[in-house]
Amino acid sequence: MRLASFLHDGEIKLGLLKADGIVDIRSQIPGLPASIKEILRQDKLSEIRKSLGDLEDSEAIRIEDVTFLPPISDAEKIICIGRNYAAHAKEGGAETPSYPEIFLRTNRSILGHDQPIIRPKCSDKLDYEGELVVVIGKTARHVTEKDALDYVAGYSIFNEATLRDYQRKSTQWTIGKNFDKTGGFGPCLVTPEKLPPGATGLSIKTFLNCNLMQDGNTGDLVFPIAKLIALLSECMTLVPGDVIVTGTPSGVGYARNPPVWMKPGDICQVSIEGIGTLSNPIEDE
Amino acid sequence: MRLASFLHDGEIKLGLLKADGIVDIRSQIPGLPASIKEILRQDKLSEIRKSLGDLEDSEAIRIEDVTFLPPISDAEKIICIGRNYAAHAKEGGAETPSYPEIFLRTNRSILGHDQPIIRPKCSDKLDYEGELVVVIGKTARHVTEKDALDYVAGYSIFNEATLRDYQRKSTQWTIGKNFDKTGGFGPCLVTPEKLPPGATGLSIKTFLNCNLMQDGNTGDLVFPIAKLIALLSECMTLVPGDVIVTGTPSGVGYARNPPVWMKPGDICQVSIEGIGTLSNPIEDE
Repeated sequence: MRLASFLHDGEIKLGLLKADGIVDIRSQIPGLPASIKEILRQDKLSEIRKSLGDLEDSEAIRIEDVTFLPPISDAEKIICIGRNYAAHAKEGGAETPSYPEIFLRTNRSILGHDQPIIRPKCSDKLDYEGELVVVIGKTARHVTEKDALDYVAGYSIFNEATLRDYQRKSTQWTIGKNFDKTGGFGPCLVTPEKLPPGATGLSIKTFLNCNLMQDGNTGDLVFPIAKLIALLSECMTLVPGDVIVTGTPSGVGYARNPPVWMKPGDICQVSIEGIGTLSNPIEDE
Repeated sequence: MRLASFLHDGEIKLGLLKADGIVDIRSQIPGLPASIKEILRQDKLSEIRKSLGDLEDSEAIRIEDVTFLPPISDAEKIICIGRNYAAHAKEGGAETPSYPEIFLRTNRSILGHDQPIIRPKCSDKLDYEGELVVVIGKTARHVTEKDALDYVAGYSIFNEATLRDYQRKSTQWTIGKNFDKTGGFGPCLVTPEKLPPGATGLSIKTFLNCNLMQDGNTGDLVFPIAKLIALLSECMTLVPGDVIVTGTPSGVGYARNPPVWMKPGDICQVSIEGIGTLSNPIEDE
């Protein structure tokens, strides 16, 4: 199931993404909340799943007529993992970490599929980072690695765009990762049933203006999904709608010679096998 | 004006803190939202200020009968600043930073005055950090240092309790700062009119079981309030209710010989001149 959050006719809607468009789920199943986070909190996924046949047969809104929002735009927390692919740690001159590098993003820093990533006035060192996202479906605290995947609602894609000079102004990366509207997220939340457990072994690729820049595989995560959920839930309560952005493979712009920065007019796309493609143009603030 | 958020008779209430107790503001001024963040968003502070005389004369609920909540428990962002006192940077073996060290906290990591800070199962390296808080009152983007204090709603106190071993498991401090219920925040939001501009020159002290552990002055902030607001607003939009936790003076537990860790049964208090005292007992998870 591919769930999307989108704007249409001035309203926030809950959608089922199909090959030929998006079905407005709530027009078929009245009483459901519009927010995917609320769907997860209220445990309503099974209700949508039960009607899947009918929904698949329903008339779809054309993709051209909708504005994508992030699948979750009101997360309690957006937890990002750094240096989670050994080859990316190495290209940045760092060791493979023995514990995840963790930082947070604000909801204000994210945006949906096809919406512009904003290059701010104060920096032109805007770099891409294609990443696999996991969204939490059930409250998780002190979860073992063995049980961790039971707490997954689904997977998605992130372009964790970063202002590299701000990331390195101090030892903490957070500010370079939290400029307004820099984190592309979407296009949809893909529930796990058709993906390998933990979304492992999937090709993940980033394209800048159709040029392949990152070519990784989610099987190379230093800390795979189940391990991340176990480690995080040792420290904090994970709740439905929490977003974990799992780190980027090698090939980022700053580590190239000469470095590559995203600029207005560019289009950056992140594709993950079985999940889809997130596309974002770049615009100036 | 000292605004507090508290639980009483099973309801979240908006309070005016007085010497002899708390006045339930909404019982006197119907139609106001209960959340201080919403008061700021809807620009309702002036409405409360107009009725201040009547509120001061109203009957107060006894402090013993209320449960304090953080003044803001639904912030869009809680932005924390590290190494913002030169003497604290030095005791940790670090240079005074040339740009603020910035990380985020989640709302789930915070708790109100008199509520217990939780020492987790997985670590006993729980350290205190007394800090001045500034709360944003108006949307701020690209604000100059000169204008920055116009965007301040008020000041408060934070005990930014940290699991030191988790803080140092990787280069990023975030996880050691985001354990459930470790950040004491309160007791109230003090509006700026009776404080020096930027809350500068105020004594800030942390006591563990009545022993003085930190003895600083907010005049020693490396990046004072106005500078922080200007720097942050260059990167992101600050909105009403955003919380900035401005860093801790020297004297933290880990830098002592032998180190001092907080343990169940301890009481940790942070006092800032003109703002008040935040007190939290320590309990085990």
